[in-house]
Amino acid sequence: MASVFTKIINGEIPCYKIAENEHYFSFLDINPVAEGHTLVVPKKEIDYLFDLDDETLTGLLTFSKKIAKGIDKALSTIRTGVIVEGMEVPHAHVHLVPIHFEGQPMSLGRTSDISKERMQEVAELIRNAVEL
Amino acid sequence: MASVFTKIINGEIPCYKIAENEHYFSFLDINPVAEGHTLVVPKKEIDYLFDLDDETLTGLLTFSKKIAKGIDKALSTIRTGVIVEGMEVPHAHVHLVPIHFEGQPMSLGRTSDISKERMQEVAELIRNAVEL
Repeated sequence: MASVFTKIINGEIPCYKIAENEHYFSFLDINPVAEGHTLVVPKKEIDYLFDLDDETLTGLLTFSKKIAKGIDKALSTIRTGVIVEGMEVPHAHVHLVPIHFEGQPMSLGRTSDISKERMQEVAELIRNAVEL
Repeated sequence: MASVFTKIINGEIPCYKIAENEHYFSFLDINPVAEGHTLVVPKKEIDYLFDLDDETLTGLLTFSKKIAKGIDKALSTIRTGVIVEGMEVPHAHVHLVPIHFEGQPMSLGRTSDISKERMQEVAELIRNAVEL
């Protein structure tokens, strides 16, 4: 069965899309730890990050770097952190968590309450700042 | 001034070493979130992960994958998670956090109390399981 991320990639489930290329897809996490919290997933549906072949793994990281640079530019972050746990959805995904201030809580599951309108605004800001 | 990680790489500060190659170095985090919590650093001293050039960034990940596979094998984990925050030491570093059970807390700063003897044992177990 297709993972929820594959359904998002295929447009069967809506998302706040950031960017995509042939192999990767990026969108806002709907349970954001911080404003601008973004997911990056390979289109290939593989559960565990370290089961990705080297080419897909390294491509995922260079794609994530471009998204992170866009986040940093769009939101004037200190930097963007990375978390991969992958226990919730069996489809490897990189969390890009913008760090807005030192000591900001980074744990997944501590969700910030952000309105739909603001999610749309933030997605557009990042989308416009990303250079693929 | 050399970062604490550069001093570890140069052998000026002791560590529970896991592995190294020409460009990367790996050792146990002395403030482990979980048993087997390992750091991987590029020998090149650059503060922010996403300021690494693509070659160094992707090499860091393929090296980390080998370490993570060693951790998974040595400690019979569910899998190994990844965290990069990098606010403490201005030298890019990947946290590899073994996930021993579902729901395991992953926040950096929640340190597990592990004896020196056990740290040495765990380092040796991982070291012997890593295939570079």
